[in-house]
Amino acid sequence: MADDPLVIFTPSGKRGRVPVGTPVLEAARRLGVDLDSVCGGRGICSKCQVAPGKGAFPKHGLTVAEDALSPVNAVEERYDRIRGLKPGRRLGCQAQVQSDVVIDVPPESQLHRQVIRKSAAERVMAMDPAVRPFYVEVVEPDLDDPTGDFQRLSQALEDQWQIKGLRADLDVLSRIQPVLRKANWKVTALVWGDGRQPPQLIDLKPGLLETPLYGLAIDLGSTTIAGHLVALDDGRVLASSGLMNPQIRFGEDLMSRVSYSMMNAGGAAEMTLAVREGLAQLASALAGEAGITPSEIVEAVIVCNPVMHHLMLGIDPVELGQAPFAPATSDALVLRAAEIGLGIAPAARTYVLPIIAGHVGADCAAVVLSEQPQKAETPVLIVDVGTNAEIVLGDKTRVLACSSPTGPAFEGAQISSGQRAAPGAIERVRIDPDTKEPRFRIIGVDLWSDEDGFAEAAKATGITGICGSGIIEAVAEMRIAGLVDPSGLIGSAEQTGTARSVPEGRTHSYVLHDGTAEGGPRITVTQGDIRAIQLAKSALFAGARLLMDEFGIETLDRVVLAGAFGAHISPLHALVLGMIPDCAPDQVTSAGNAAGTGARIALCSRAARVEIEDQVRRITRIETAIAPRFQEHFVAANAIPHATDPFPELSRVVTLPQVGFNAGDGDRPRRRRR
Amino acid sequence: MADDPLVIFTPSGKRGRVPVGTPVLEAARRLGVDLDSVCGGRGICSKCQVAPGKGAFPKHGLTVAEDALSPVNAVEERYDRIRGLKPGRRLGCQAQVQSDVVIDVPPESQLHRQVIRKSAAERVMAMDPAVRPFYVEVVEPDLDDPTGDFQRLSQALEDQWQIKGLRADLDVLSRIQPVLRKANWKVTALVWGDGRQPPQLIDLKPGLLETPLYGLAIDLGSTTIAGHLVALDDGRVLASSGLMNPQIRFGEDLMSRVSYSMMNAGGAAEMTLAVREGLAQLASALAGEAGITPSEIVEAVIVCNPVMHHLMLGIDPVELGQAPFAPATSDALVLRAAEIGLGIAPAARTYVLPIIAGHVGADCAAVVLSEQPQKAETPVLIVDVGTNAEIVLGDKTRVLACSSPTGPAFEGAQISSGQRAAPGAIERVRIDPDTKEPRFRIIGVDLWSDEDGFAEAAKATGITGICGSGIIEAVAEMRIAGLVDPSGLIGSAEQTGTARSVPEGRTHSYVLHDGTAEGGPRITVTQGDIRAIQLAKSALFAGARLLMDEFGIETLDRVVLAGAFGAHISPLHALVLGMIPDCAPDQVTSAGNAAGTGARIALCSRAARVEIEDQVRRITRIETAIAPRFQEHFVAANAIPHATDPFPELSRVVTLPQVGFNAGDGDRPRRRRR
Repeated sequence: MADDPLVIFTPSGKRGRVPVGTPVLEAARRLGVDLDSVCGGRGICSKCQVAPGKGAFPKHGLTVAEDALSPVNAVEERYDRIRGLKPGRRLGCQAQVQSDVVIDVPPESQLHRQVIRKSAAERVMAMDPAVRPFYVEVVEPDLDDPTGDFQRLSQALEDQWQIKGLRADLDVLSRIQPVLRKANWKVTALVWGDGRQPPQLIDLKPGLLETPLYGLAIDLGSTTIAGHLVALDDGRVLASSGLMNPQIRFGEDLMSRVSYSMMNAGGAAEMTLAVREGLAQLASALAGEAGITPSEIVEAVIVCNPVMHHLMLGIDPVELGQAPFAPATSDALVLRAAEIGLGIAPAARTYVLPIIAGHVGADCAAVVLSEQPQKAETPVLIVDVGTNAEIVLGDKTRVLACSSPTGPAFEGAQISSGQRAAPGAIERVRIDPDTKEPRFRIIGVDLWSDEDGFAEAAKATGITGICGSGIIEAVAEMRIAGLVDPSGLIGSAEQTGTARSVPEGRTHSYVLHDGTAEGGPRITVTQGDIRAIQLAKSALFAGARLLMDEFGIETLDRVVLAGAFGAHISPLHALVLGMIPDCAPDQVTSAGNAAGTGARIALCSRAARVEIEDQVRRITRIETAIAPRFQEHFVAANAIPHATDPFPELSRVVTLPQVGFNAGDGDRPRRRRR
Repeated sequence: MADDPLVIFTPSGKRGRVPVGTPVLEAARRLGVDLDSVCGGRGICSKCQVAPGKGAFPKHGLTVAEDALSPVNAVEERYDRIRGLKPGRRLGCQAQVQSDVVIDVPPESQLHRQVIRKSAAERVMAMDPAVRPFYVEVVEPDLDDPTGDFQRLSQALEDQWQIKGLRADLDVLSRIQPVLRKANWKVTALVWGDGRQPPQLIDLKPGLLETPLYGLAIDLGSTTIAGHLVALDDGRVLASSGLMNPQIRFGEDLMSRVSYSMMNAGGAAEMTLAVREGLAQLASALAGEAGITPSEIVEAVIVCNPVMHHLMLGIDPVELGQAPFAPATSDALVLRAAEIGLGIAPAARTYVLPIIAGHVGADCAAVVLSEQPQKAETPVLIVDVGTNAEIVLGDKTRVLACSSPTGPAFEGAQISSGQRAAPGAIERVRIDPDTKEPRFRIIGVDLWSDEDGFAEAAKATGITGICGSGIIEAVAEMRIAGLVDPSGLIGSAEQTGTARSVPEGRTHSYVLHDGTAEGGPRITVTQGDIRAIQLAKSALFAGARLLMDEFGIETLDRVVLAGAFGAHISPLHALVLGMIPDCAPDQVTSAGNAAGTGARIALCSRAARVEIEDQVRRITRIETAIAPRFQEHFVAANAIPHATDPFPELSRVVTLPQVGFNAGDGDRPRRRRR
């Protein structure tokens, strides 16, 4: 009514009139203001703390009187005595509106608080997890009331929180009676809901739950499984960990695992078991790191590509190994954690992102969720570099995706001194263009190899080999330094002017580091290594070029390198190598583990899940295996950086020498070749 | 339009006008006529057969022309050639309406055909199973279509059968790809739906499924587990079997099993495992009997009382052992068969009827479903006699229920020569009122013991003891013959005039059969046996009387005896014993295994499930344990048939002798006692 007090909430600005005596929490509900409450207004959870304004607010045209809110009552006094209320704060469920007032809702009292992701993406997102705690007081049974305890619990949740149609798995049902009685019928129900399926009771805790809820975000890659334990109240990462995918023993890459399942009866089942064990192990490690038990984790989100997806779910991936590469199912899935043996709360739900079909997987969906190409004004290329490279090109008008079989060279496989990224592996390389001398960094040591103290520091791990990012930089540096010609041929000592170029069979190798004196390996870049890298990078380039053809563009304004590996690739070296089409080097950025970030976003926000499920339907997939121009683009990309494209953007920053080493030219003068 | 042909369907009488050329099947759909189709109109399943009328139909005001339907087409000719069409029949999906026509839909073409239950209940019910077969042709994948096989299968089911939002368990998803390909994309989907939860894909069969679908109806009793394998197209029972409840080794009756769980950590889990093994065994036996594999069974319905309910579900029943006897959950449940290890199709759903709480269980709900007291004009008493007697009294106005702890005496326990019903057990007894000589029948032999050939026939099993129905008849006959007085005391040889009354300690026993000469037992009815029966029947009577008090009635018009045991009790003897309140003997009937029948009804009809869930909420439960008048009714019922009630209805049919045997009266003349 017109005379009722006017309440204005900040920061939202929502306002309205409420009758005198209305509790602030209720006023917030009526006006649609985001103010949290777990205990449902009983003054014990303190989530609804607010800071009432004082004095004049010309902007709002009102003045807040001293007694705009009711005096502090016994409940608030008790709360302040036991736990303390910050000065100026009131409990929204206790304080009642008496006259015009401005009320500020501090961030920690907001249910859908904004979180800034501490990642390169700097993405602002509203927390909207699927599992939330709801404190209720349940009516006790008596001889006149024939209903079950679960029915009365459900009724309490409906009455106090408008949760309708609650369901519970058998194992949860079997636990509620002791909890209810031990807690004297005052419990916190952990309820999962996605707004589409009926809400599920995940667990029941005695009394008011004081700790946050925990969720798991998992990026299930072919080579590495990475996971994050996340607090579901504010999205902060409490623990991160990873392990090698235990399926590697069945096949280094995806296609060899598909072959394994085709050749071995029960092979798919073996791999399913192996990967589930790995996932459970990861969940356990993350819980341990955060100091909780795995059963306290109440939700999980998993992203993975189609082959990993099927194997994890226990579906034989054989159809994914042959045209038309049809998956058994492509929509998002909600499973019980126990169905895949995850070892967290058994009734916890696990959300699996949708796959885009073929070889473009849920991890690509997660990349799209994280990078949001569909909101870009101009097309952005996103490359998730792994054993299978997943490439997305999109803008506001459309999003295309494809998968390119790069093979494991980028992860150190097929490389003579190659190894996975681990302490002791060479991860960065620079070669002096004049002296041809190399300097490098190894994982685990912060110094370059030509700096004082390096030899000492390297003793701990030794210098053991070269990993993916190292070999990419090595090859690119060799090209910049003129040790390798555009065709990829390593020159002889005479042609290159360095004794580090040594004969090896009918070709030459470049000695990066000879550790034999210390009992370590001699780490060289061989001609075979160059070829392996050339093939891998050509596949990546060709995939990207196909998407650009389909999009109708010839040049790129922006490239994002994603994937755990993508975070470590130097954009400049990636361009020199010609792994990606030409682009201004300062427009090539790393998104870190975009798939993992996407998983975390989906974990923290149901709205994001709906968004990605919708986006996935709009993504157009290009199948590289049968694209007519793939071979052409592939062959043209063999050269470093490219056979015909002059890479103008790169050229503004780096001048690549024009050299040419023909087999047998060793004795003849250098010929200039473009 | 007004000129369009008029189509009249019989037997429903539904009518309407459809354009020339409309297939009969489509006309039926438009007019809401029940005409089945599995193949969706492709002319291969023959479920839509119809019989068009010929000539004049004055009642309907039309004449059917010779060419009222289109001529037999190639599809029908082919069908007739390969499988045969009865004369006068047409395939509804092929025949098109050309002019006015009357079309009869034979019963086998009706989807919701009426089935007459071959039971004492003679209940007519419409088939409405939850799982049905749907033939579809699925679009094949191709490189331009990125969706998964499951998505295209779901789309086909939505397009052709309006099934929306289909889901599938993981194990089903993992099977669809090979089936689709082997069947060249033509499959029959077995879809479960209850109209409330999303539809579930239970299984996928190649091609058109020719066999019916199978379901399981299980009555999970404390002592016996009984099951029926049912064909879901027409409700016929294909196999029936039973086994002893494996939990008996943990406790003879429910309360001793609850005690076992309270005294033994892990005791409840042991019992859960035991009963689930029993259920799986039963499913396997039924499948074997019907010549199918257990995995072909696609749905199950289970009825059980609250303690069995909780143990089967893995819920500790401890709260059911003490006031207020609150169950963990009381609503109907839908589980996956695999959750309780049932061993049928793993994705098969299992519907568990709701429990009425306290000690009145889902089997009582099933009794209500089967007997439908809520539709009776005058109150009917339904007694489900088992270890725990469940008693229902109801009519159109209301339904009351209670549970009475009769104990296992009615099943032969606590009886000196008592045994469970098995071949060799005395099951029926008659005693000549003059000679006091008994004659009896044993299970497995069709002759009475005084008939020629009996001794020979009985050699196979021997005469081993007396079971529940036998002891009831024995006691009642002893009362009729004047061998036992109204207080339950057995007279001496002198008092009774038969040497069959022998001294036993300070009391007497009646020798029913002395088999010692043949090496068999001497089967007597002892005074202890009489007392045990008196206690058991008093509890039953008291429960029934409490309900009558609550209902406000003094007399009964109708009684139904249910339970596997109830089927074998002679109504007359039950009245003589005073097990039930007085009622005209011809109004006391046996419903056979009403709980089992109720399970079958729920299996065959989703509408029945909704009905019982609704009814259960309306049933008022009376708790015998704390009812003030229980003790009073119990004590008054000790006498045979009753201390004060003259049982006028019984008296019209049977005159009970007035005898009295006081301890120590052996030497004194008989005194008349009322």
